[in-house]
Amino acid sequence: MVESGMTLGLGTGSTAAHALDRLGELLRSGELVGVGGVPTSLKTEAHAARVGIPMLPLGGEPAVDLSIDGADEVDPELNLVKGRGGSLLREKMIEGSGGRFVVIVDESKLVPRLGCTGAVPVEVVPFGCDHTLGLIRKVFDGLPGFSARLRTKGGGGKDGESAGGPVVTDNGNYIVEMFFDDGIHGDLNDISDRLLRITGVVEHGMFLGMATSVVVAKKDGTVVILHRK
Amino acid sequence: MVESGMTLGLGTGSTAAHALDRLGELLRSGELVGVGGVPTSLKTEAHAARVGIPMLPLGGEPAVDLSIDGADEVDPELNLVKGRGGSLLREKMIEGSGGRFVVIVDESKLVPRLGCTGAVPVEVVPFGCDHTLGLIRKVFDGLPGFSARLRTKGGGGKDGESAGGPVVTDNGNYIVEMFFDDGIHGDLNDISDRLLRITGVVEHGMFLGMATSVVVAKKDGTVVILHRK
Repeated sequence: MVESGMTLGLGTGSTAAHALDRLGELLRSGELVGVGGVPTSLKTEAHAARVGIPMLPLGGEPAVDLSIDGADEVDPELNLVKGRGGSLLREKMIEGSGGRFVVIVDESKLVPRLGCTGAVPVEVVPFGCDHTLGLIRKVFDGLPGFSARLRTKGGGGKDGESAGGPVVTDNGNYIVEMFFDDGIHGDLNDISDRLLRITGVVEHGMFLGMATSVVVAKKDGTVVILHRK
Repeated sequence: MVESGMTLGLGTGSTAAHALDRLGELLRSGELVGVGGVPTSLKTEAHAARVGIPMLPLGGEPAVDLSIDGADEVDPELNLVKGRGGSLLREKMIEGSGGRFVVIVDESKLVPRLGCTGAVPVEVVPFGCDHTLGLIRKVFDGLPGFSARLRTKGGGGKDGESAGGPVVTDNGNYIVEMFFDDGIHGDLNDISDRLLRITGVVEHGMFLGMATSVVVAKKDGTVVILHRK
């Protein structure tokens, strides 16, 4: 999958972390040469530096040949929900920038519809976020079981900030979490456009038509690879 | 136009500044009572505080009843270009939040097509901005006379930052300026969607179907009011 000389989009999260470790090993052993990575988060950037993966800026040459990342949900068309970890904007920018995009998940992430198993995140500008939240709710107005809220920090009060404040992304924005009782019915591309037209919305966590293949680790230990039709 | 008890969206720029001054006078003299303003920029917030206009948060109750602002361009359908002053996101959020939106311009701002007289701004996330700039260029690929560039500070080195660096918006983002030799031909709503679908794009300066009326000050000293059909 990964070859010498490639530029890689480096995902964020527990699955991607395994890929970073392995990539670092192959580079240190000399099995891979001339590979550089474009990190999708500050956390991934730090991890990649630690294991010895050279960093490249996005928009440099060569463009990204291959991105590798996990996902929160994968539907039958290989549309994804990503960004429950909070890095959806940079992930979408890098993983959608061209080249192949390989997603690695375990079987539990396969869903009949996006939004079935948890939050679908939306990155919003802090200014006017309550107003923006109201407009996001209107997109799904009347949908039974729909709710949306601003993501707040857990009880931990991490990074010295008080517990309960809004989570801030790498880009200085907030995250709205959308919840659906039975997943998102309807035309996903249309819903995407309606969300993006809201002035305070920067990006959302539905990755539509982006994954080129999905590697699924099954409970029985076998691996299945799905390709986009 | 402005009545006691109203919540006003307060625009940004030289035209809006006149409205702020006059509003402050009417409040101080007691001719207007109970008027509050939602400022569209930090600059407007400071100005409004100086002249004694009480500030309200966006998303509070009551919602914005009326917004007043200038514009860089007004086309025959009352679509606008705004944000050459750099405050397009907050302006769009507040002025598009409901209620009437009255635009005040001089005659020179009336154009046959948006983009005829100068830059159409696009607010972009700093991360990957060169990549985003490349994708914006692709939206208008092959259009003769089109160009786009990151807005940089003038020679002044304002605010202690070095001259030539990117201009940073109130939301911590950058501005891409799009230039068109002969204005924007084609379906503006479609072009809007194509820009908003770019991951690094936060918002753009085309205000489509938002202005309810436009007050035009003509060279001969008369005033004409245009209403949206």
